[in-house]
Amino acid sequence: MEIHDFQDMMKRLYFKRDSERGVNGTFKWLVDEVAELGEELKGSDRAATEKEFADVIAWLASLANTRGIDLEKAALGKYNYKCPRCQSSPCQCTF
Amino acid sequence: MEIHDFQDMMKRLYFKRDSERGVNGTFKWLVDEVAELGEELKGSDRAATEKEFADVIAWLASLANTRGIDLEKAALGKYNYKCPRCQSSPCQCTF
Repeated sequence: MEIHDFQDMMKRLYFKRDSERGVNGTFKWLVDEVAELGEELKGSDRAATEKEFADVIAWLASLANTRGIDLEKAALGKYNYKCPRCQSSPCQCTF
Repeated sequence: MEIHDFQDMMKRLYFKRDSERGVNGTFKWLVDEVAELGEELKGSDRAATEKEFADVIAWLASLANTRGIDLEKAALGKYNYKCPRCQSSPCQCTF
């Protein structure tokens, strides 16, 4: 599924609640979901880890919706088949 | 671009460094990028905010690569055109 279509699906599912909660509240949910992913990564439950990855990208899409930002356009605006810093693929940055 | 293809692009660009850094180090980078996004959301610089969204989804894809998880498969395994909790679209959860 395209990133844009995933974001659109999240909009159809959750935009009413997301917009009522607003940017700050939705950002806090994202932070909580990232923390849950971090906890799950300490273990070895692959299915549970996949669900946490799902939640993080879902809340990231919801957050982008609250700000009216196209996540796919933003992602490809910076990362478009080459490293935005060294302009190479694979990245050749020396840091 | 499909979520899967974006993750593949990140793998081609950064997998050598990501795999050397490992899951824990890559997770810490993701956390830092989420914090930077939070700071940018306090302001009104749209282009800068888009770049921070790009960084978060990029590091999320890199993190999934370090764990060998297909981010698109994970996302659609949980969110597939209906709310995973109430099974409706739009979500009808009452919490």
